[in-house]
Amino acid sequence: MPAVQLLGELDTVLNGLSSRMREWYGVHFPEMGHRVREHSDYAKIIIKMGDKENITAQGLMEMTLKKKDAERIEEAKETTVGADFDDIDMRIVQEYAQRTLDLYQYREDLISYITLVSNEVAPNVAYIAGPVLGAKLLEKAGGLKRLGMMPSSTVQVLGAEKAMFRAIKSNARPPKHGLLYQHPYVNGAPRNRRGNRARSLAAKIAIAARADLFSGDFIAEELVAQLVDF
Amino acid sequence: MPAVQLLGELDTVLNGLSSRMREWYGVHFPEMGHRVREHSDYAKIIIKMGDKENITAQGLMEMTLKKKDAERIEEAKETTVGADFDDIDMRIVQEYAQRTLDLYQYREDLISYITLVSNEVAPNVAYIAGPVLGAKLLEKAGGLKRLGMMPSSTVQVLGAEKAMFRAIKSNARPPKHGLLYQHPYVNGAPRNRRGNRARSLAAKIAIAARADLFSGDFIAEELVAQLVDF
Repeated sequence: MPAVQLLGELDTVLNGLSSRMREWYGVHFPEMGHRVREHSDYAKIIIKMGDKENITAQGLMEMTLKKKDAERIEEAKETTVGADFDDIDMRIVQEYAQRTLDLYQYREDLISYITLVSNEVAPNVAYIAGPVLGAKLLEKAGGLKRLGMMPSSTVQVLGAEKAMFRAIKSNARPPKHGLLYQHPYVNGAPRNRRGNRARSLAAKIAIAARADLFSGDFIAEELVAQLVDF
Repeated sequence: MPAVQLLGELDTVLNGLSSRMREWYGVHFPEMGHRVREHSDYAKIIIKMGDKENITAQGLMEMTLKKKDAERIEEAKETTVGADFDDIDMRIVQEYAQRTLDLYQYREDLISYITLVSNEVAPNVAYIAGPVLGAKLLEKAGGLKRLGMMPSSTVQVLGAEKAMFRAIKSNARPPKHGLLYQHPYVNGAPRNRRGNRARSLAAKIAIAARADLFSGDFIAEELVAQLVDF
């Protein structure tokens, strides 16, 4: 479904827009940047408070910032090296932050939508892989029918085609995971366990896809129970 | 100013978002795509009419489409190979189109802002180069002070540094224009005249920048009058 490709595109777009936002507002109040990790929080602060004069620890804490960070930001106002912005500068930055935040909110909608569709089309795969990764796997495979027909060794390296072909051509080591790397079961494991985890996960996903394709029974919980430390 | 870089970034972003929008809505009504050139028009149609069932020639003409295109689109509804979208599919596509359109509108705001700043900082340059290109030249040069100190031969190839260095290294022909290619005076000329036009334009811009930097007098109209066929 195009929604999955769009999600990838949106993430790239949002990263670009957000760094530009930080760069721009950073001219005004550079010291704030590294204390506000989330781009969407950063946008909210700009929209709500605008000029650094209006930024208070209290206000920041109401926006879910930690007390320590909020206080440090307020303190930084005293010694900041940032430039003043006039009203029009500030307005244009605030509008920009608003558009960026709107897109972040749309991203959430899109994820709900993908979740809905995944759960409907392939509930077993969605349960094990998570709805977004599940949708990505379906997309990459070219649909549920194809995913259900794939050997689990192919599922394991879906999305790593480039590395796979390179390995075949040059006799290098084959990739251990492609899209599956995005699953916390894989990327949350110690480095030397990741290949192993990806293989086990792929095996269960392959079975899950077949269940979604042929029987429609919900067997995902049992499959997950068979994975050590899932 | 970061606004200029942002404009470049926005253009890239908008292209990406727009092609994804066309791809997605195209699943529903592929025949519409090539009759609606402007991405923002395409977005407006999706937002306003949604399902292809609701698209009428009348409605399209109210949105500035030409009669012929509008009628052809309405006709295409009869024979379309597009798939049906259910309400939720359509809603998520419409929201997407709305967010894209919002960004197009923000792009307009940003251009007004850049125009305002350019006219204030460097009115002579803004008049000759146009406010957006003027701002890009200032950005590339590193400010009015630097632009005003540049020989016009450097102004001519601003933004073509890569080609310039390649030419120096490999004895290839030097570039005829960089950013100045964006000016209609250059890109609107026949191919074999563009280098010449870029050189003349650069000469006037270099003088304009000096006027902005040192005297503040508005001499841009006179400078433009000296350019043949401007």
